[in-house]
Amino acid sequence: GFAKLDHHRKVRQGFEEVVYCQGKATPHLVKIYQTLTAEGIDVLGTRASREQYEAVKEAIPEAVWDEVSRVLKVEKRDRKRIGRIVVCTGGTADVPVAEEAAQVAEFFGTKVTRLYDVGVAGIHRLLSNMKAFQGASCVIAVAGMEGALAGVVAGLVDVPVIAVPTSVGYGANFGGLSALLTMLNSCANGITTVNIDNGYGAAYVATQINRL
Amino acid sequence: GFAKLDHHRKVRQGFEEVVYCQGKATPHLVKIYQTLTAEGIDVLGTRASREQYEAVKEAIPEAVWDEVSRVLKVEKRDRKRIGRIVVCTGGTADVPVAEEAAQVAEFFGTKVTRLYDVGVAGIHRLLSNMKAFQGASCVIAVAGMEGALAGVVAGLVDVPVIAVPTSVGYGANFGGLSALLTMLNSCANGITTVNIDNGYGAAYVATQINRL
Amino acid sequence: GFAKLDHHRKVRQGFEEVVYCQGKATPHLVKIYQTLTAEGIDVLGTRASREQYEAVKEAIPEAVWDEVSRVLKVEKRDRKRIGRIVVCTGGTADVPVAEEAAQVAEFFGTKVTRLYDVGVAGIHRLLSNMKAFQGASCVIAVAGMEGALAGVVAGLVDVPVIAVPTSVGYGANFGGLSALLTMLNSCANGITTVNIDNGYGAAYVATQINRL
Amino acid sequence: GFAKLDHHRKVRQGFEEVVYCQGKATPHLVKIYQTLTAEGIDVLGTRASREQYEAVKEAIPEAVWDEVSRVLKVEKRDRKRIGRIVVCTGGTADVPVAEEAAQVAEFFGTKVTRLYDVGVAGIHRLLSNMKAFQGASCVIAVAGMEGALAGVVAGLVDVPVIAVPTSVGYGANFGGLSALLTMLNSCANGITTVNIDNGYGAAYVATQINRL
Amino acid sequence: GFAKLDHHRKVRQGFEEVVYCQGKATPHLVKIYQTLTAEGIDVLGTRASREQYEAVKEAIPEAVWDEVSRVLKVEKRDRKRIGRIVVCTGGTADVPVAEEAAQVAEFFGTKVTRLYDVGVAGIHRLLSNMKAFQGASCVIAVAGMEGALAGVVAGLVDVPVIAVPTSVGYGANFGGLSALLTMLNSCANGITTVNIDNGYGAAYVATQINRL
Amino acid sequence: GFAKLDHHRKVRQGFEEVVYCQGKATPHLVKIYQTLTAEGIDVLGTRASREQYEAVKEAIPEAVWDEVSRVLKVEKRDRKRIGRIVVCTGGTADVPVAEEAAQVAEFFGTKVTRLYDVGVAGIHRLLSNMKAFQGASCVIAVAGMEGALAGVVAGLVDVPVIAVPTSVGYGANFGGLSALLTMLNSCANGITTVNIDNGYGAAYVATQINRL
Amino acid sequence: GFAKLDHHRKVRQGFEEVVYCQGKATPHLVKIYQTLTAEGIDVLGTRASREQYEAVKEAIPEAVWDEVSRVLKVEKRDRKRIGRIVVCTGGTADVPVAEEAAQVAEFFGTKVTRLYDVGVAGIHRLLSNMKAFQGASCVIAVAGMEGALAGVVAGLVDVPVIAVPTSVGYGANFGGLSALLTMLNSCANGITTVNIDNGYGAAYVATQINRL
Amino acid sequence: GFAKLDHHRKVRQGFEEVVYCQGKATPHLVKIYQTLTAEGIDVLGTRASREQYEAVKEAIPEAVWDEVSRVLKVEKRDRKRIGRIVVCTGGTADVPVAEEAAQVAEFFGTKVTRLYDVGVAGIHRLLSNMKAFQGASCVIAVAGMEGALAGVVAGLVDVPVIAVPTSVGYGANFGGLSALLTMLNSCANGITTVNIDNGYGAAYVATQINRL
Ligand SMILES: Nc1ncnc2c1ncn2[C@@H]1O[C@H](COP(=O)(O)O)[C@@H](O)[C@H]1O
Ligand SMILES: Nc1ncnc2c1ncn2[C@@H]1O[C@H](COP(=O)(O)O)[C@@H](O)[C@H]1O
Ligand SMILES: Nc1ncnc2c1ncn2[C@@H]1O[C@H](COP(=O)(O)O)[C@@H](O)[C@H]1O
Ligand SMILES: Nc1ncnc2c1ncn2[C@@H]1O[C@H](COP(=O)(O)O)[C@@H](O)[C@H]1O
Ligand SMILES: [Mg+2]
Ligand SMILES: [Mg+2]
Ligand SMILES: [Mg+2]
Ligand SMILES: [Mg+2]
Ligand SMILES: [Mg+2]
Ligand SMILES: [Mg+2]
Ligand SMILES: [Mg+2]
Ligand SMILES: [Mg+2]
Repeated sequence: GFAKLDHHRKVRQGFEEVVYCQGKATPHLVKIYQTLTAEGIDVLGTRASREQYEAVKEAIPEAVWDEVSRVLKVEKRDRKRIGRIVVCTGGTADVPVAEEAAQVAEFFGTKVTRLYDVGVAGIHRLLSNMKAFQGASCVIAVAGMEGALAGVVAGLVDVPVIAVPTSVGYGANFGGLSALLTMLNSCANGITTVNIDNGYGAAYVATQINRL
Repeated sequence: GFAKLDHHRKVRQGFEEVVYCQGKATPHLVKIYQTLTAEGIDVLGTRASREQYEAVKEAIPEAVWDEVSRVLKVEKRDRKRIGRIVVCTGGTADVPVAEEAAQVAEFFGTKVTRLYDVGVAGIHRLLSNMKAFQGASCVIAVAGMEGALAGVVAGLVDVPVIAVPTSVGYGANFGGLSALLTMLNSCANGITTVNIDNGYGAAYVATQINRL
Repeated sequence: GFAKLDHHRKVRQGFEEVVYCQGKATPHLVKIYQTLTAEGIDVLGTRASREQYEAVKEAIPEAVWDEVSRVLKVEKRDRKRIGRIVVCTGGTADVPVAEEAAQVAEFFGTKVTRLYDVGVAGIHRLLSNMKAFQGASCVIAVAGMEGALAGVVAGLVDVPVIAVPTSVGYGANFGGLSALLTMLNSCANGITTVNIDNGYGAAYVATQINRL
Repeated sequence: GFAKLDHHRKVRQGFEEVVYCQGKATPHLVKIYQTLTAEGIDVLGTRASREQYEAVKEAIPEAVWDEVSRVLKVEKRDRKRIGRIVVCTGGTADVPVAEEAAQVAEFFGTKVTRLYDVGVAGIHRLLSNMKAFQGASCVIAVAGMEGALAGVVAGLVDVPVIAVPTSVGYGANFGGLSALLTMLNSCANGITTVNIDNGYGAAYVATQINRL
Repeated sequence: GFAKLDHHRKVRQGFEEVVYCQGKATPHLVKIYQTLTAEGIDVLGTRASREQYEAVKEAIPEAVWDEVSRVLKVEKRDRKRIGRIVVCTGGTADVPVAEEAAQVAEFFGTKVTRLYDVGVAGIHRLLSNMKAFQGASCVIAVAGMEGALAGVVAGLVDVPVIAVPTSVGYGANFGGLSALLTMLNSCANGITTVNIDNGYGAAYVATQINRL
Repeated sequence: GFAKLDHHRKVRQGFEEVVYCQGKATPHLVKIYQTLTAEGIDVLGTRASREQYEAVKEAIPEAVWDEVSRVLKVEKRDRKRIGRIVVCTGGTADVPVAEEAAQVAEFFGTKVTRLYDVGVAGIHRLLSNMKAFQGASCVIAVAGMEGALAGVVAGLVDVPVIAVPTSVGYGANFGGLSALLTMLNSCANGITTVNIDNGYGAAYVATQINRL
Repeated sequence: GFAKLDHHRKVRQGFEEVVYCQGKATPHLVKIYQTLTAEGIDVLGTRASREQYEAVKEAIPEAVWDEVSRVLKVEKRDRKRIGRIVVCTGGTADVPVAEEAAQVAEFFGTKVTRLYDVGVAGIHRLLSNMKAFQGASCVIAVAGMEGALAGVVAGLVDVPVIAVPTSVGYGANFGGLSALLTMLNSCANGITTVNIDNGYGAAYVATQINRL
Repeated sequence: GFAKLDHHRKVRQGFEEVVYCQGKATPHLVKIYQTLTAEGIDVLGTRASREQYEAVKEAIPEAVWDEVSRVLKVEKRDRKRIGRIVVCTGGTADVPVAEEAAQVAEFFGTKVTRLYDVGVAGIHRLLSNMKAFQGASCVIAVAGMEGALAGVVAGLVDVPVIAVPTSVGYGANFGGLSALLTMLNSCANGITTVNIDNGYGAAYVATQINRL
């Protein structure tokens, strides 16, 4: 086949390769899952469709799929989770991206506190939940439309905030550009940003930070 | 000359024409001020340079110029101010635009409360000043960079918030685009937006609302 | 569930929460409508599909859906409407957005005069209907393509004009960007702008102004 | 030298080459004017600076420069003007571009009626001047900011309207993009558009039409 | 209904209203065609789908639809065609837009010479067909991708060239933006531009010019 | 004055406020430095001009300015530096931004290893210096033009990489947009991004991570 | 029909015309293949759908279609391949574009070495395969998302690198813009770029170079 | 100092490093020239200002600067030139970029034929010079504004065309974007593109091709 397996990565970086399911032909995806589980490796895929799930499930009965996050897992170990991060969202429509982040972080061995629908349009919802941030090693802030949540949170906590803009919204959100620019231009300190809808990437960095 | 004077406007809309000084040749500007003051009309200009001010001042000693807002006024009446609006900013760099808004609104006969440097990076600065909004007929929220102030304020008050994005910032602020998109995409209710750095336009609408 | 209900809003801002139906799973939406109507609250949703309507209708027979505006209402009170606003459009293709605005404003207790298809390409259609604006507290101007209607109206009336750009058009309209920029850059006074296709947001602010 | 003179053009197209002065080194420009006038050809240059003018003037005393349009002419013939076009503008800041158009058209032998500062923010100024359009073979409509003038005029006349967007404005005008998009998306019939600030190009086409 | 019929237009501008079919509900469209034909008016619609055609055909058997251009006509008069224009394209994929232009121009009473697939990648195809342009009153140049055809033609003819950028292409054509910018920035003289894919608009102006 | 000092920040977040000098009036800036040093607080400013430096120096002789980074410091404590981060650049033109990052991180008490001009066009320069990364808690990767350095580094190390796009380049770099998009879209894991040229912001987060 | 066949091209340029299948009506496409094969010409089409393939296959049984590259060939000659180029990709999702390039180059008579999934996120995969580049006359580097592969390769080889950005990715990849800008701004020497996803264009130039 | 000298390049790629003078401090630049010439290496710098030239000249009397191309050379060898390429431009304003390309190619040992001001607005200028292309190994086509020259040339020759978009133009040229998109989207075969105004990059690749 075409793919050059990156056997160095687990050694170099301490993370298994995660499968990006979107766009992969279903038989090809099933084979990837089979190969990896046959080697005794736990596998997590992101952006898996229901159809992909059903095919993998048929081959590997332990496969579990979450409709909201579209995460598709075959997890046999019982990995101990350490530390803690917070994943928060501006609205309920951001939850799929947030759950991708949360479930990837958990798969990588991180404890996660979820705090959803606490966007700045009703700031009391965030302020009355500040205790959730205590003791967390970092925060993933997921928001679409105006994306202001990340900056407000960064002004309130003293740990790194990883901002995830989402494509939620319409019109002049230009597919997530509005939230992305908001986050890049935040005048709060302690924010860094990942690609639009990239819950996975945020979880990866959050885990790196959480392990320090 | 080229200009078609809009003699209908004061009748149609209850506001005098305000002079946009930027780009006007100085002698031409002096003449406009002289013509209008000769007719007994109070004049306000926006975006006047120091050089323009000095020339107008020489012709009309009562001319007053504010370095921060670049507003250039010849005001002889002692106009009674009614109602009240709040003008707030995210940072200190937004103050020139905010002052343009505030001084135009005052010239049009509106009382103004200023609340500057209360951006979302330190949200307690806004929350501890909420009483300033009580009884105001509307709010002008001026912010650059991420521009999140407008949405947070709109979530806290029950009057219209007129959002003014500013070109303050650098890099991916793209000359004010970031703040503009934030404001247009706000998930808070009760926000409308004007052009980047358009303090004047916000003051005009705020005065219309304040007069209702 | 995930959503943090914003119980403060009605108290803080005098408006019930309006449901944004687009993208919500149908069973989830039905539940939201059931919960709210069970509490005796009248509910309005925007951007509801026919399929969503049919499911809600089955659960709540009083549910009413308008195909043009895609507004889905359960309204039991007989709310008195006060004041008056005008909702006008450039063309007939803008009517869905205009009707979202008009019906939301009516739901919030505002009287609405509709003036559709009066765009600037045939300016006499607007000029011969100017009496419709008399006595209105504000105007919502809805237009796509070139979006020039808002500026022309603002030059003719003395109340605030809330401009709603629409995504109507093709090619270099770039999904509504052309109308949005026209409105933000209008040289007429008294215009503020909301997001592309955001009839809801315009109606909210118009109601705030109308109540003053 | 580098330039390949286009000796065919006058034959092929009936127009002399017009000199684009901007960016040309002054001695180089003087030489071009000298060469052409030596051959008995009348010369018109666009976007000439005062400094360029003074150098050309020293070499050719008949050279005439207009500060507003920045047109620099050496015109010895007394060319008969035929037909008639209208050049109109939205505001006074658009006049430099309009004058480039008007003076180029006149140089090419076209009669020109000017109608400046009749933008849509005060539509009565246009409507009360409609007689100026009677008998014109085409209209050049010059406007910046929202650029709505072209569409309104096209809805009122039955000859081609050549729309010239200008870079006049600030913020979200994005250097003339707002007016350009407005004009390209106009729902009025009979409009075509040229580049931002391209008065020259509009005059060229207007003359072609006027000669038909 | 909503639409304000523009009864002035035929009087003011000498053209009937042409129906923009795209996005119109089929029953609504049928009614428009019935009303107009009942009044004895010939009707032309653009961007009509096969489904719309079939419904109109059922109501009005004389309706004729062209699959390539998607023009849907009910034409009973036998209108005399005058003058002549050329419609040319860069490639074969641009033909649908070109045919919209050609058929609209013919409907408006203009003779049309078609010259398709003569783009600049094989310039001899254009050069060996130059006689087609002789005697034409203007040219409509339709091209996507790089859109260079319009500039080359304008350098070769002495009548106005109306450039129609198309959305043909992929990748960095950005939906027609590449061809649009090419045409707006052409260094050839005598070009004006209309919206992306707007064959109709080009035909309207070409007819205005052709009638002069 | 206008500014609301954020006295909570040091308590809330463990960092003093850093002064953003750009755009501040010189006398105003001098006063800020005087006030803070009078309170015994060490001060660091970013983007200070030589002129600003000279004025501050006159008031506070201990002030030190670095021409490359434009950092302006008054530092009396002798703060112990802990941990270690790496700051690397693609080219030498990126060094000003990198030095802003490095000096801010050092001011905040972090040890810094510099590795400059190791961009991907000569990858051996990076590969032969990999030992510099050993033991670092995180990496700041600064690059303009294509901005590929961040992704390559992230593929080689197992700590977070904070990517800083710079505006270095010309043409289609669009002021730093090219590097920004490269970094946001990196297929390597462990990257987050800050605003174009925002060395300060990267240093802030790097320090947060380094302190964990 | 409409198309002007370019009979000169094979003579002028030494390449047969390649058919761009996308958007062509199936019967029209079948006819093109029949005409050309009837003349004894081998035919290659790009971006052919399965449906198009099946129709062509029915008419011409020797037709061969590759699902990955969507190349549709009728090849009867047994053309000798000369020289050698390398086609490499950043990831597996870029393979369809790379295969279009590789198969077109082979059809034109070029030997091709494939080196897929060697992107910069795991640079050792590229470095351990450098021998593949020895003796190649040029390299086609295909990459989406950040698109950094082209620059790294160009820094390592001494032959021209033709960079093909792909639309692979999501969010801020903006349909391939991110990779395109990366490649255009590469600080490595020896890179030129073609349109997003244009494997065909890269193969054409590579063959020109390979034949030298 | 900061810079990591790339001693491998000459060995790896057969080209010396060329100095990018823009933005380099003058003393720093002088030192670079001194170091390299002291090692007996011929040096070429691009984008050198007159001020930089004068300083280098003072240190190294053999330094030669060309005002048009801004190339600054110290060339002692008498390098034999091989092969031949053509450098052509659309207009005279593109000559500085073309000369950068031509002089860099000559410095690298390539013979260059110049063909300037042959843009598509007067296509006969190109067609009557086609013999210049005979025997050339490749063509560099330099054009701003609409940038159509590259596609026309590529349709006429059978060697690779390297397209260099320039920032020449105004308005909707958006700093060279218009020409860049034209070139990327060319429907002619055999074109690849480099960054806006990047004459150097084109010369580098042209030399690679010319040496094959
Ligand atoms: N069409 C609309 N456009 C923008 N905002 C809306 C729209 N309809 C409802 N909303 C807002 O969206 C909120 C509900 O969002 P959600 O929590 O996702 O249901 C409401 O409180 C309204 O403020
Ligand atoms: N203001 C202008 N904008 C666009 N094109 C112009 C302008 N003035 C002159 N031109 C054109 O530029 C050509 C001269 O360009 P050049 O050869 O650079 O002097 C003339 O033949 C005109 O076609
Ligand atoms: N170079 C910089 N880029 C972005 N933010 C900065 C920079 N330097 C300082 N800051 C932030 O700007 C704030 C000061 O802004 P101001 O109140 O305008 O002085 C500081 O608290 C920092 O958070
Ligand atoms: N995938 C492709 N991308 C760009 N151009 C192509 C592609 N495939 C074929 N072509 C070109 O498109 C031309 C055919 O276009 P057409 O006349 O529409 O069939 C061929 O001569 C090639 O130059
Ligand atoms: Mg909510
Ligand atoms: Mg502050
Ligand atoms: Mg209509
Ligand atoms: Mg005016
Ligand atoms: Mg063809
Ligand atoms: Mg270097
Ligand atoms: Mg891979
Ligand atoms: Mg020329």
